[in-house]
Amino acid sequence: MILHVKRNCTAAQRRKLDRKLALIGATVYESPGSNGRILAVIGNPKELRAAGFDQEPAVSRSIPIDTPYKLANREFRPKNAVVHVGDLAFGGTEVPVIAGPCSVENRTDLLALARAVKKGGATLLRGGAFKPRTSPYSFQGLGEEGLSILAEARQETGLMIVTEVMDTRDVDLVCRYADMLQVGARNIQNFNLLKEVGKAGKPVLLKRGMMTTLKEFLMSAEYILSNGNFDVVLCERGIRSFDTATRNLLDLTIVPLIHHWSHLPVVVDPAHGTGDTRWVPIMARAGIAAGADGLMVEVHQDPENAYSDGDQSLLPDDFASLMKGLRPVAKAIGRKV
Amino acid sequence: MILHVKRNCTAAQRRKLDRKLALIGATVYESPGSNGRILAVIGNPKELRAAGFDQEPAVSRSIPIDTPYKLANREFRPKNAVVHVGDLAFGGTEVPVIAGPCSVENRTDLLALARAVKKGGATLLRGGAFKPRTSPYSFQGLGEEGLSILAEARQETGLMIVTEVMDTRDVDLVCRYADMLQVGARNIQNFNLLKEVGKAGKPVLLKRGMMTTLKEFLMSAEYILSNGNFDVVLCERGIRSFDTATRNLLDLTIVPLIHHWSHLPVVVDPAHGTGDTRWVPIMARAGIAAGADGLMVEVHQDPENAYSDGDQSLLPDDFASLMKGLRPVAKAIGRKV
Amino acid sequence: MILHVKRNCTAAQRRKLDRKLALIGATVYESPGSNGRILAVIGNPKELRAAGFDQEPAVSRSIPIDTPYKLANREFRPKNAVVHVGDLAFGGTEVPVIAGPCSVENRTDLLALARAVKKGGATLLRGGAFKPRTSPYSFQGLGEEGLSILAEARQETGLMIVTEVMDTRDVDLVCRYADMLQVGARNIQNFNLLKEVGKAGKPVLLKRGMMTTLKEFLMSAEYILSNGNFDVVLCERGIRSFDTATRNLLDLTIVPLIHHWSHLPVVVDPAHGTGDTRWVPIMARAGIAAGADGLMVEVHQDPENAYSDGDQSLLPDDFASLMKGLRPVAKAIGRKV
Amino acid sequence: MILHVKRNCTAAQRRKLDRKLALIGATVYESPGSNGRILAVIGNPKELRAAGFDQEPAVSRSIPIDTPYKLANREFRPKNAVVHVGDLAFGGTEVPVIAGPCSVENRTDLLALARAVKKGGATLLRGGAFKPRTSPYSFQGLGEEGLSILAEARQETGLMIVTEVMDTRDVDLVCRYADMLQVGARNIQNFNLLKEVGKAGKPVLLKRGMMTTLKEFLMSAEYILSNGNFDVVLCERGIRSFDTATRNLLDLTIVPLIHHWSHLPVVVDPAHGTGDTRWVPIMARAGIAAGADGLMVEVHQDPENAYSDGDQSLLPDDFASLMKGLRPVAKAIGRKV
Repeated sequence: MILHVKRNCTAAQRRKLDRKLALIGATVYESPGSNGRILAVIGNPKELRAAGFDQEPAVSRSIPIDTPYKLANREFRPKNAVVHVGDLAFGGTEVPVIAGPCSVENRTDLLALARAVKKGGATLLRGGAFKPRTSPYSFQGLGEEGLSILAEARQETGLMIVTEVMDTRDVDLVCRYADMLQVGARNIQNFNLLKEVGKAGKPVLLKRGMMTTLKEFLMSAEYILSNGNFDVVLCERGIRSFDTATRNLLDLTIVPLIHHWSHLPVVVDPAHGTGDTRWVPIMARAGIAAGADGLMVEVHQDPENAYSDGDQSLLPDDFASLMKGLRPVAKAIGRKV
Repeated sequence: MILHVKRNCTAAQRRKLDRKLALIGATVYESPGSNGRILAVIGNPKELRAAGFDQEPAVSRSIPIDTPYKLANREFRPKNAVVHVGDLAFGGTEVPVIAGPCSVENRTDLLALARAVKKGGATLLRGGAFKPRTSPYSFQGLGEEGLSILAEARQETGLMIVTEVMDTRDVDLVCRYADMLQVGARNIQNFNLLKEVGKAGKPVLLKRGMMTTLKEFLMSAEYILSNGNFDVVLCERGIRSFDTATRNLLDLTIVPLIHHWSHLPVVVDPAHGTGDTRWVPIMARAGIAAGADGLMVEVHQDPENAYSDGDQSLLPDDFASLMKGLRPVAKAIGRKV
Repeated sequence: MILHVKRNCTAAQRRKLDRKLALIGATVYESPGSNGRILAVIGNPKELRAAGFDQEPAVSRSIPIDTPYKLANREFRPKNAVVHVGDLAFGGTEVPVIAGPCSVENRTDLLALARAVKKGGATLLRGGAFKPRTSPYSFQGLGEEGLSILAEARQETGLMIVTEVMDTRDVDLVCRYADMLQVGARNIQNFNLLKEVGKAGKPVLLKRGMMTTLKEFLMSAEYILSNGNFDVVLCERGIRSFDTATRNLLDLTIVPLIHHWSHLPVVVDPAHGTGDTRWVPIMARAGIAAGADGLMVEVHQDPENAYSDGDQSLLPDDFASLMKGLRPVAKAIGRKV
Repeated sequence: MILHVKRNCTAAQRRKLDRKLALIGATVYESPGSNGRILAVIGNPKELRAAGFDQEPAVSRSIPIDTPYKLANREFRPKNAVVHVGDLAFGGTEVPVIAGPCSVENRTDLLALARAVKKGGATLLRGGAFKPRTSPYSFQGLGEEGLSILAEARQETGLMIVTEVMDTRDVDLVCRYADMLQVGARNIQNFNLLKEVGKAGKPVLLKRGMMTTLKEFLMSAEYILSNGNFDVVLCERGIRSFDTATRNLLDLTIVPLIHHWSHLPVVVDPAHGTGDTRWVPIMARAGIAAGADGLMVEVHQDPENAYSDGDQSLLPDDFASLMKGLRPVAKAIGRKV
């Protein structure tokens, strides 16, 4: 249930409301509204309805939330969330671009690539140190060594670092190096991991799973929010369909859907979303036109010999071209890349 | 098999080639290339390989086509096809917009709506006279009366008419009124209908089915092309997915895919593609950014009382706003709406 | 709306009811119930509700049908429909088996195969004379010649003939030869074809499309029923999924679903449903266990050289083995193959 | 690569082979074949091909494995694996049945239910102590208290205990109580969890994810096998489709597919597979007919008030009826429930 608390209610009225909320054991989250405070009240739906909150003098309006997500619902936070990572912000006019290799493969290449994507216009560096691979015999990532290479790249280039965490046991470790934690598509319903990143106090990039509905996506975000972390950026990276013409099927309509139902920003990843560099630049443009609050692309100096995702990794020069192509489209809709 | 015929080959060389083609009973289609003629040769693959066409003096290059579509393949027509409907063209710099109601409901409303969409910027008028409805108890269209109302609207407004044909027996009738024949999503593999519209000598708008792969889509186009009609415009209108958050799932990546594999133009229909007017304008913009050669949207004066598709039909004023929003995006990528 | 008419209502009461139905312009279908007659009343829902049929002395019960299909709904026909094809029946204890090649290729092979499948235990012969092929360059069927070969096979073996009709213009022709008309998966929403076979007065085998929901499937049947033909047998033949491990995904749960929501019999086609002979016999068994009222399998003397569907066509001997394997499973659930 | 080692090779020949394997750093798994030993050799494919193993005197045959799964491939273990849980076995003639509630809710009810399902014919008890719930506000399970209730139920009834583990940090804890570890559908690609259960030394029930292909399913099993645990039972529990007529779409064809490509046993879960008790008994029968090596069903004394999955939970009496219905079908195909 959402309660709008009057801006001008008295302290006594507010205390009375808080006591009633405590009495029924509700969990309460608070956010600023245009005309007072907004409370998201989580509890037994029957008890909430019976409690008669709309009779409370402190309350101007009570709205039952009929979606299962509460904190991720725009009713609770009418304004767009802006998620800061260092000086950058997802959810504002400017659209941050995350670029880098699928995996951190070695120090030299990563540092060179970091400089190249920075020059091309990226503001965040991606790179996997822990890799969720379909095969146990594939390269599984460099682990902490990879994290430390990423940190070195940040120091050298100033790029913010986004990297994946796959295991509840590794959240602390990854937090020591990363500026933003990525939860991968395969862990979209690894609820214990979501709880841990919810407690970790770092911004989270939450990638949609291959078969995640809009509602499930927001519910997975809700796990993070309800554990105290509101700095969540969603990421569309393609879903699975019946057609094998592309690796995944990029679902750009989810961008306006998320903007309608939630306050959270959303990033588009056309590399995973199509799986082929031939379609990445044009679908990046389409993503911007659909309202994406950020982009994520894979870049590699030598895609043919990449340890993973070579087919969808751009050369540094092609990344720079992609960035050039984005700017007029962003400008056309009042944004900036 | 594709044969590139030298621009400067002698008449005798060409006759020799033609005799060899006739001998193995191949069907041959011809199209202009940058450096001579291009032939698509359809026949028994084994015999084609054995015939040794690359030894022919008239032939500069022979390419086996490993896709099942031949005439729709860009190897056969390296340049973008431009499909003319009256003075309009799909496939050029300018992007035609098709607008109108789902069904022609009555003369007065249709004429008023035609004027409204023309004013808003549409150049073609859509409207169903034959309606493929899931339920036999739903409105099935006005039939020939609907066609004649559409023709009247053309006379009054100058808009070109696009309307659906559902039955091989109706192709002649619809041709007498329409400027462009629409084959609907449910008939994407009604092969006899495809053959008939292939013989009909009118441009065709071929809508993708709810579960049509890229390859099947181009094969359905191939039915029309191989029956003599190269004026085919494809239309992405959303496919079926696991998520019920939207009516269909708009697959914009198919736009660059079609442009890569084929020479045919492609139109995006965000009305069916999303099923909800709330997402239509933004997805129209994204469609343009993805390179769509045309747009199709549903417009109705009174969506709540529309006989069909009310949820996804824009009001005339909202259509005009949508058009305004498109122009800067089209301009940003060097096109014009 | 469903009306239960009392067995013992007077003629005057019934006349009064009929007048009221005529007055609101409803279309009425009648079927026998356990305790009187059952009427399916199709008309404007608002008017139907307002008419107060439950006040009519002839009416014992009125039930709004909240499914869009009315005549296909079990509320209208509480007992299982039994669809007769010659002496055979779909929907009874005995389970007819339809076998034969994908396409009729020539007279000699078809007649030999007809004898073989009869010997193996089939009671109906399938074989396509009109073939819906993805490619315009693939074999499109022998047309009327194929039909006449099928008729000859019937004369020789006594097997009933099931064959596909693809075009409204061919319904009369196919009716002259076939005992049962097949509507193929690609025509599941070719509504004009459904109307024509609804008027044709022959039993219909209606195959589910690759992306047809349960509701759409019953709505397509409704097109046939509402055009006067209640002899409809549904056929599950696999739907499309994300996994390419099989050609299609056999959905056996639709068998109990159809039996619950409708009175129509349902046949399972494990050949198309899996696309590979290795899985056909076991999935035929599973289909029987799921309650299938019939089976359809493809059989060919020389699958490797079949014009179509060779991968999923059994050799005659393997068909005979399959039949042997079915019998104990059928017996275990009180049926007979 | 698979190497067949001759039964009668000399110790020196074998040592020579082992040295060559060690030299190229291959990981080797060994399993008994009908005519000697079978080695699965995991390593760099190029080096493996170059090593010339077929020249080795110890080797009778070398087979490149072209599937990405090696240890799960039937080439490596030609005979069906039999996975023992206490005295029970998955993969033999007898078909174990796992029954119990979705969640362990309290001691009294669980103990009563354990007695009831044992009386009905179950041999394993399921019940979740850690619950992966879409909503953070839903019941998340009793944790260790739930595990200890399950252990008490085992002591009282002799039923083996299957329960889910969701977090790498909980593997040891769950191992202390459970006889078989369940990895849930949402964790099918939680690779770190798969590695940990691979090291845990308990049989594992690995549930297919909602969008897991056959190949991915076997690759997830491969993670467990390659960590040393060959006691893996796969579980089909329905995948996601476009039709909302059922909660999930039960894919029974995967049963013969798994039996063909792998040696691992497979269990069918018609409760999750359909989501509705109305279809559970009949689809359990169909699962047996498709060759399932086990069944899993949800049973609850009071489904309407169950904390989770009430719609698909049978009453104890209905479970007993289901078991009765299974026996003749199992017998018909030479198995026993």
